[in-house]
Amino acid sequence: MLELILVGVGTGNPEHLTLQAVRELNAADLILIPRKGEDKTDLADLRRTICAQVLTNPAVRIVEFDMPRRDASAPDYRRGVDSWHDAIAEAWSDAIGRNLPTGGKAALLVWGDPALYDSSLRIAARLTPKPIVRSIPGIMSPNMLAAAHGVAMNEIGAPFLVTTGRQLRDHGWPQGANTVVVMLDGECSFRHLAPEGIVIYWGAYVGMPEQILLSGPLLQTGPRIAAARAAARAEHGWIMDIYLLRRAANKDDGEAVIP
Amino acid sequence: MLELILVGVGTGNPEHLTLQAVRELNAADLILIPRKGEDKTDLADLRRTICAQVLTNPAVRIVEFDMPRRDASAPDYRRGVDSWHDAIAEAWSDAIGRNLPTGGKAALLVWGDPALYDSSLRIAARLTPKPIVRSIPGIMSPNMLAAAHGVAMNEIGAPFLVTTGRQLRDHGWPQGANTVVVMLDGECSFRHLAPEGIVIYWGAYVGMPEQILLSGPLLQTGPRIAAARAAARAEHGWIMDIYLLRRAANKDDGEAVIP
Ligand SMILES: C[S@@+](CC[C@H](N)C(=O)[O-])C[C@H]1O[C@@H](n2cnc3c(N)ncnc32)[C@H](O)[C@@H]1O
Ligand SMILES: C[S@@+](CC[C@H](N)C(=O)[O-])C[C@H]1O[C@@H](n2cnc3c(N)ncnc32)[C@H](O)[C@@H]1O
Repeated sequence: MLELILVGVGTGNPEHLTLQAVRELNAADLILIPRKGEDKTDLADLRRTICAQVLTNPAVRIVEFDMPRRDASAPDYRRGVDSWHDAIAEAWSDAIGRNLPTGGKAALLVWGDPALYDSSLRIAARLTPKPIVRSIPGIMSPNMLAAAHGVAMNEIGAPFLVTTGRQLRDHGWPQGANTVVVMLDGECSFRHLAPEGIVIYWGAYVGMPEQILLSGPLLQTGPRIAAARAAARAEHGWIMDIYLLRRAANKDDGEAVIP
Repeated sequence: MLELILVGVGTGNPEHLTLQAVRELNAADLILIPRKGEDKTDLADLRRTICAQVLTNPAVRIVEFDMPRRDASAPDYRRGVDSWHDAIAEAWSDAIGRNLPTGGKAALLVWGDPALYDSSLRIAARLTPKPIVRSIPGIMSPNMLAAAHGVAMNEIGAPFLVTTGRQLRDHGWPQGANTVVVMLDGECSFRHLAPEGIVIYWGAYVGMPEQILLSGPLLQTGPRIAAARAAARAEHGWIMDIYLLRRAANKDDGEAVIP
């Protein structure tokens, strides 16, 4: 019997592992760590640090494997991602087959929570033979952002939307919510919004030693964020950022913010 | 100097505390536990259990205080909540003042993450004298739901909305997202939707020993959930549930699901 455990490990602070995550990692026969040759983010390093800090069971084997590279030149984006996921599934199968030929428990450290903009669950579903897959929740980057700024994600009784930079850029302020959390944004897509009446809470490397936070009215704060982001990216060679946008409720949907 | 630390403790599974939460609780001078006389949910008990399981520092004092009751008869809902929050702030101030007259660190165990449909941050802002407030992120119920069902919250590159039962009931399927996470729903508000093409992932007491999960097409699964919910509520005397709804993308917003 083969089990694959996707362990959410938070978004950069090793102290954000849950007690459950620590127990699951220590109960694994095998922990797979992707080695991304060209990866500037050193997330592989962070995964190694986490293992070093929380593993107390010497029987757990840590095995590194090479992450396949995505063919960014594929003409059809969706199909390119698809075959990349196939390749990752093959790399996992291969590493698991070689190290657990008669079954056992393999674990993967997943950034943040496996349920949020992460393909591990979808990749796991492609494995043959099919393992039992379990997902261990982790602290996500939106939680980190909100905690760092000391703000709530929602207004009282009101909805909020979680979306990507691309969606914001292509479709503007989404309907249905006055609070929007934006992830996976390589290019400060908030610049495409009319900034009046919008407040932004921005964070890069949230929860990590490099953490930067900026917040305020989008009109004044947007340009400061764009500059800080470019400088930090140049300094570190990589960046991960996230932000929450909140606009004043319109009079005519005032009722919507009352629970 | 007075510090108030809002510690997210997850949504019912004591193993979901993070290492940071455990450290913060052990570094507190005082942990405040609300005692709700009429509370059927036994969340006060769970808070005591968590303290018993994770506290290793005998110097931490645990103090219970009576939670003020909300005046449900207040004619203006919003103002009723407002004065209830004032009363809670007074109860906190009072307990802190009596137990930490010269300052120190007080901690509160907050259900899930303090940033999600929780008023602790807003109540903390009303305290006098003003303490330094810090928020420690916790695993939230949407993460628990997704992990329990082994599904992602988002479709690839697509947005999702987090909202309340009341919003869903009053406004129908929200615009701007094909995935909706519904919380704070006392009455199966999904019944107000045309069920065709919608899949539901539902969970009650998620992460707790009483956990119940149901999922499937809303048309068939909705009535089963309504029945299971009523039965569980009758059996336990209380219920906490959450669900994720996903509908097939419309042809004309097909592009929206491609990152
Ligand atoms: C592929 S998604 C993975 C999200 C992850 N599963 C989670 O739960 O947060 C990566 C995006 O998450 C956000 N992110 C993750 N970690 C972050 C951090 N430490 N600081 C800021 N943003 C972060 C960024 O928006 C980034 O583009
Ligand atoms: C006042 S909100 C607090 C949410 C909390 N701060 C969090 O992070 O999940 C309470 C709502 O959260 C959801 N909830 C919290 N814990 C839950 C659990 N263990 N199982 C199912 N739903 C839960 C329910 O929708 C409930 O109505």
